[in-house]
Amino acid sequence: MTQLLRVQNFNVSSDGVAAGEDQSFDSPFGLAGAERLFAWAGATASWPRRTDPGGSRGLDDYLTRDYAHNIGAEIMGRNKFGPQRGPWQDHQWRGWWGEEPPFHTPVFVMTHHRRPSFTLSDTTFHFVDGSPAEVLEQAREAAQGGDVRLGGGVTTIRQFLAADLVDTMHVAVSPVKFGSGLRLWESPDELLDRFHLDVVPSPSGVTHHLFWRK
Amino acid sequence: MTQLLRVQNFNVSSDGVAAGEDQSFDSPFGLAGAERLFAWAGATASWPRRTDPGGSRGLDDYLTRDYAHNIGAEIMGRNKFGPQRGPWQDHQWRGWWGEEPPFHTPVFVMTHHRRPSFTLSDTTFHFVDGSPAEVLEQAREAAQGGDVRLGGGVTTIRQFLAADLVDTMHVAVSPVKFGSGLRLWESPDELLDRFHLDVVPSPSGVTHHLFWRK
Repeated sequence: MTQLLRVQNFNVSSDGVAAGEDQSFDSPFGLAGAERLFAWAGATASWPRRTDPGGSRGLDDYLTRDYAHNIGAEIMGRNKFGPQRGPWQDHQWRGWWGEEPPFHTPVFVMTHHRRPSFTLSDTTFHFVDGSPAEVLEQAREAAQGGDVRLGGGVTTIRQFLAADLVDTMHVAVSPVKFGSGLRLWESPDELLDRFHLDVVPSPSGVTHHLFWRK
Repeated sequence: MTQLLRVQNFNVSSDGVAAGEDQSFDSPFGLAGAERLFAWAGATASWPRRTDPGGSRGLDDYLTRDYAHNIGAEIMGRNKFGPQRGPWQDHQWRGWWGEEPPFHTPVFVMTHHRRPSFTLSDTTFHFVDGSPAEVLEQAREAAQGGDVRLGGGVTTIRQFLAADLVDTMHVAVSPVKFGSGLRLWESPDELLDRFHLDVVPSPSGVTHHLFWRK
């Protein structure tokens, strides 16, 4: 069975922006209005962070409920873990994801600055230095036959795309424009040389872009 | 956690036809050209009966790979099990689904004619008589907290819709017309009093109809 590397529920604006350049502790996305990018997901019944019953069960819900399907590990960039740069100053602070992180698998945080692994609930964070291919190899082994989710952020996804390691990618494009920030692409067409693409407008207003390797 | 009753990957023509009236051993659907209704699913990577690698991983694949997600039991009408009518004549013949049925859960076959349960691989078939509500209660208990899939055929789905027991329903409408046969509906709009509906055209040519209870 192939172990895929999958990007899932990654959100960008109509001009391809996924984050701002001024990430901070109080602004994880470094982008005013970033919550408009993922409102579609929060409205679904299967949103991993939903705590109350309810929510829609249409198209968007298929996307959110696939989030953990057959996933055995996640890879994320350091900026998805926290706003720190350089050597770790404070080992007490254990990331933005709280005591019950929504990953439920090993998570490999890419950083040039090692720190010891730790476990929160059923998620274990490992801090790894290496090329995308090397980190992917570690994550695949930890996934025990499952797929690996490439969790972002945008810089990390671009690295893995550049290394041609991504197998499938779901990007939700919201009808909002930021003008500046960190972009996934100028246009999704940039990827058509290597990927098939289904473009699926949702009644919620976002347009799901579903890529899979040719 | 609510246990949903879900219809998944159910296929009809543009005029609502899901099967013919002349079902037989050699023609499980009783409908010439029925395979055109589910060709979209067979083309996907996650089609449960796929034996070789390959297949698409776009929109249609989200639908096929959700087939088993959180499902703990299936309910089917007798005609989805086999072409027999009346009392069972031959207990040796154990259904259309082969030695490795694609269900992997308990399956409740609705019939007025009881026969002993049996197991093929990891699927156990039970033969039950009762109202839709009674059979659903048995299936929910067997599903051990999981959802229950309502597998069809069309007559069975109509029964459960009439009893207002269906929570979500995915119907793939193919661009083919049969003119006569057993219909799920005259029009999907018949269900809008009780269901939300996302209508999602797929690049493959089918239009996915995703219903969820209001």
